[in-house]
Amino acid sequence: MRIAVDVMGGDHGCGVVIDGVILALKHNAKVSELYLVGRQDEIQSALTERRFDDSRIRIVHASEVLAMTDKPVEGLRRKKDCSILRGVELLRDHRADALISPGHTGGLVAASTIRLRCLPGVDRPAILAVIPAPKNEFVLVDAGANVECRPIHLLHHAIMGSVYSREILGYKKPRVGILSNGTEDNKGNALTLEAFKLCKAVDLEFVGNVEGHDLFNNRVEVVVCDGFVGNIVLKTVESFAKGLLSWLKSELTSNPKRKLGAFLARGALLEIKKRVDPDAYGGAPLLGLNGNVMKAHASARDRAIMNAIRLASEAVQHQINQTIIEAVARANERLSAAKLIPHHSE
Amino acid sequence: MRIAVDVMGGDHGCGVVIDGVILALKHNAKVSELYLVGRQDEIQSALTERRFDDSRIRIVHASEVLAMTDKPVEGLRRKKDCSILRGVELLRDHRADALISPGHTGGLVAASTIRLRCLPGVDRPAILAVIPAPKNEFVLVDAGANVECRPIHLLHHAIMGSVYSREILGYKKPRVGILSNGTEDNKGNALTLEAFKLCKAVDLEFVGNVEGHDLFNNRVEVVVCDGFVGNIVLKTVESFAKGLLSWLKSELTSNPKRKLGAFLARGALLEIKKRVDPDAYGGAPLLGLNGNVMKAHASARDRAIMNAIRLASEAVQHQINQTIIEAVARANERLSAAKLIPHHSE
Repeated sequence: MRIAVDVMGGDHGCGVVIDGVILALKHNAKVSELYLVGRQDEIQSALTERRFDDSRIRIVHASEVLAMTDKPVEGLRRKKDCSILRGVELLRDHRADALISPGHTGGLVAASTIRLRCLPGVDRPAILAVIPAPKNEFVLVDAGANVECRPIHLLHHAIMGSVYSREILGYKKPRVGILSNGTEDNKGNALTLEAFKLCKAVDLEFVGNVEGHDLFNNRVEVVVCDGFVGNIVLKTVESFAKGLLSWLKSELTSNPKRKLGAFLARGALLEIKKRVDPDAYGGAPLLGLNGNVMKAHASARDRAIMNAIRLASEAVQHQINQTIIEAVARANERLSAAKLIPHHSE
Repeated sequence: MRIAVDVMGGDHGCGVVIDGVILALKHNAKVSELYLVGRQDEIQSALTERRFDDSRIRIVHASEVLAMTDKPVEGLRRKKDCSILRGVELLRDHRADALISPGHTGGLVAASTIRLRCLPGVDRPAILAVIPAPKNEFVLVDAGANVECRPIHLLHHAIMGSVYSREILGYKKPRVGILSNGTEDNKGNALTLEAFKLCKAVDLEFVGNVEGHDLFNNRVEVVVCDGFVGNIVLKTVESFAKGLLSWLKSELTSNPKRKLGAFLARGALLEIKKRVDPDAYGGAPLLGLNGNVMKAHASARDRAIMNAIRLASEAVQHQINQTIIEAVARANERLSAAKLIPHHSE
């Protein structure tokens, strides 16, 4: 397995990302080559500083970095030698099997779409976020790649989410729901009501509409929405969890009696913290592309990077892109037969 | 102050709602008349059972109840003698100053819109939800009345939310943000990008776009969105809070040591539970109507009903509808002058 890591563009500099790579190389024997993409001198000095030497490491120089303040497409046009583009090109040229980048989300989506193109039958990539719930974990697709979607895109989110949930997270028959403002079939906006018909017509474990109350209630493993809604939901949940836990911490340390109580009960708190820890996932895959691309958190530290590398290599191993191509083709066939989409001559 | 309460349509029957009314009558001296709207025999026997007799109580008989399974408009057409319609008519006929109903949300919105009409300059009512955050509380408008909105509707949500936050929650200059997929000015979908221009052109404490991460971060007091997104966010947050607290509870009681710790630290947990308690608000006002309508939670128990009555009477006292009319008129004037909306001749 050949992995490329864009070591630039994270919040904490390239050293932290390289720490993650070192952890991954120690724990993941399947990695045969590891490309570090970014400024050669910075990478070299980080490696020297860590006294790390591994024959699997290759440095691919990229002189520029797409900054968080850059506009995606315009930035990519201006910074042709940026690490994101160089990383994506390793995938395109079949020199790497997967790419992990903690950089600019919009830039990564744009670069991947332009250089790799989408899978046959898929129009646009989607970001998949894995969210832990008390009794299961669900994937939210799209978590922010496509702000304006058409109904067929939501169907593809449903299919890609199902494949990921089954192949990577191990749910045999992942239940799929469209995120809406109520569970009744007639609830929704113009987009979701149309997507509902498409999801119902194909081979999915489709439970219909789900609402906010269902997310953490073990009702579905795949939550389908457009990237506008998905991004809002993902960030709301992240911020709420963080806010509630830090609030709990401040209340628990406000007097000695509570401190003692918190000390005795710390096992419970650690258990929860571990479950909701974003580093356990480390990143969010971009699905629907001719290549395996994983967006790591911009704030990812070593353990998060290691986990992102692990998840990316699992996606490669399970050949999820091939499975997605087949599932989308089957769905399109069904929809054409049911006259729900125009017939594809190809 | 004359209050009407639709005692039917809640999850727990009319007795619980009447318990809330009794609490309100004990604690709210400003209530001069209280209409109980619903099946006369049921109301009478609930009052007798509670041995409650108060000269302020008036029973208004309504023989039908709009069920949760009824479609709003169709249901209202079929059930002309339902409690929601009878309650709204008390407002329309100026026999009551405010109506509280734990019944069918869509039905309440439809009945109010049809019978009361919107305030001058406002096209549609919006539901406002108050959400507690660690360092402030924010209002989410619209929380589910309008699934499909136009940009001007979002502007009205911003104005109505600001008025409510100022007059009822006491924020002198409530900060307003449009809920989007990023904080940059160019982030958003077609709807929010247009609404951004409108909000920027009028007299609001407008901070621009906010994302999910900002909600619990003391960045705004008014979060503007369409009813589809608002409903999803509200329910997601409610369900997540509930899930996390019950998870915490089960972890904290899983062994004797943790139980002891939880006992010592219970003050901290109660503090948080109190702050996130939905009963403290009891309901969500419908804004933009010729009349004060408050949607109570369907599952509202006595304390929630009492609080809903208290908030509804505060809205009456502060004449927030008059303030909304004036603010909307000023905004429309500004927008016409800036040629952002067509000139109103009226």
